[in-house]
Amino acid sequence: MKIAIAGSGAMGSRFGYMLHQAGNQVTLIDLWPEHISTINTKGLSVESAGEQKFVRIPAAFPEDVHADFDLILLFTKAMQLSDMLKKIAHLLTENTAVLCLSNGIGNLENIQKVAPDIDLLVGTTLWTSELVGPGSVILNGSGYIEFQAIENVSHETVNKINDVLNAAGLNARPSNNVLLSIWKKACLNGVLNTLCTILDCKIMELNKSQYTSVLTKRIVAEFEAVAKAKDIPLTAELALKTIDASLAPDQAGDHYPSMHQDIASGRRTEIDYLNGAIARMGKELNIPTPTNTLITELIHAREDIAVKN
Amino acid sequence: MKIAIAGSGAMGSRFGYMLHQAGNQVTLIDLWPEHISTINTKGLSVESAGEQKFVRIPAAFPEDVHADFDLILLFTKAMQLSDMLKKIAHLLTENTAVLCLSNGIGNLENIQKVAPDIDLLVGTTLWTSELVGPGSVILNGSGYIEFQAIENVSHETVNKINDVLNAAGLNARPSNNVLLSIWKKACLNGVLNTLCTILDCKIMELNKSQYTSVLTKRIVAEFEAVAKAKDIPLTAELALKTIDASLAPDQAGDHYPSMHQDIASGRRTEIDYLNGAIARMGKELNIPTPTNTLITELIHAREDIAVKN
Repeated sequence: MKIAIAGSGAMGSRFGYMLHQAGNQVTLIDLWPEHISTINTKGLSVESAGEQKFVRIPAAFPEDVHADFDLILLFTKAMQLSDMLKKIAHLLTENTAVLCLSNGIGNLENIQKVAPDIDLLVGTTLWTSELVGPGSVILNGSGYIEFQAIENVSHETVNKINDVLNAAGLNARPSNNVLLSIWKKACLNGVLNTLCTILDCKIMELNKSQYTSVLTKRIVAEFEAVAKAKDIPLTAELALKTIDASLAPDQAGDHYPSMHQDIASGRRTEIDYLNGAIARMGKELNIPTPTNTLITELIHAREDIAVKN
Repeated sequence: MKIAIAGSGAMGSRFGYMLHQAGNQVTLIDLWPEHISTINTKGLSVESAGEQKFVRIPAAFPEDVHADFDLILLFTKAMQLSDMLKKIAHLLTENTAVLCLSNGIGNLENIQKVAPDIDLLVGTTLWTSELVGPGSVILNGSGYIEFQAIENVSHETVNKINDVLNAAGLNARPSNNVLLSIWKKACLNGVLNTLCTILDCKIMELNKSQYTSVLTKRIVAEFEAVAKAKDIPLTAELALKTIDASLAPDQAGDHYPSMHQDIASGRRTEIDYLNGAIARMGKELNIPTPTNTLITELIHAREDIAVKN
């Protein structure tokens, strides 16, 4: 299959690499010049299980790519989605399906605003990845993908995409309730990513404090209340089960989550699509969300202080 | 005057030094072995305006001090007050006045529980100081002291203490409403210390984010509500005026506040006597304090993760 990765950061590079290894014709699209030139000159460096490989996959700026793709994997941060969609508008033909696996609440609405007529699928994934420098990723652990056709996508196309993803070992499965999965993942990130960023710690270190569970319950209760008002069947029980599983001693990562990496590197975070989305919707719906509001403000303050001018 | 400093950390060392320079007979009491031995062998290192001095002031553990003091300055962290008072019980004679300038809400009640009959004065100070290692402080800026007799202290004693403090350049003034000053200071610290700790920044860096003012207003509004219920005339207007003054570009410190230093050094903080006191009293009084509650929990979580075992 001809596949473009639109947004080839940590996760995009992982998916591009795995799909390429499975024999697909992959193009990595990104906006970071050093990343693109490093991949094109040395190959994409992939470190996994202590082994490092350099893999030849073409990388380019959006405007330099001219081809018909069967599938475009949209993998930018939530706040860069609209911009990326505009930059790849020339690639969005009627034979091209677009699958967005970006984290966060509100992506579907954002995509439909910018590109209302595309063949759209959205989903979520529990795969992780770490971008350690231009052209270089470290892959740890395993994950899965849930995805669902939203508009203009046939059952056959869903199956074809599902087969391609599974042939690459990505553990994909079509879902009938992908919004629940997206909200569940946003809630997971709204707890683990956000707390690790504010508390300046690795995921496994969250287990060192009994306050992690107190704070988690406060955050999750507000996700539940807003989800209920939005007809998303995300219960606190379900969210806590996912979070507890990620914090289990044999699962909890010995790494800083991506939001912590964003702040450390002076970048903006996707907080407005996690806790910030709950705060914003809570305000619209008249549902009190003091915890997610305060957490969003604290992360924005950290961004302002850490961000490179 | 014969003066003991009970708790000779950053602030205690500054006060001990200034009172010693003014000709008083000062003894530094502390619990940190390296601090005491360094002071006794090399002298207390005092760096001020780029100049470093070594000053000979005796330092000792509480149990090694046996003398009649006219004044004991109690200067531990709020959570160590009770313990220090028990350790210096043999020094609390009827000719000894005790002045507590420790930060935080609830110190007076704690002291009265442990040592109900002492000649007690409490106060607050805007002096600052930084302990950079055992036996070594850096002094920056200026400040003042407000203090008030609480029990068993004559007008003459108040005046005598006031004169001694002022002769040492400490800008003291007796107050009739020291609880207001203590709450105002606790609110100042509950904003600046706490935000700098959570946001991992220096006081001057708070000015880099517009969210500082949003967060400040949330914290202060709850201080005001609880103060009102406790008959302390602390208004949000008054608190914000003090905070704004400390954040003015020519005033905002190019340093990490003490709570940030505590976390960085793996020590517990005095959060339970700042935002935590508001959360606790709010709960007792049925006043909503979601901001101070969450901030207290976040700081405790940071302590648990950072603290040295």
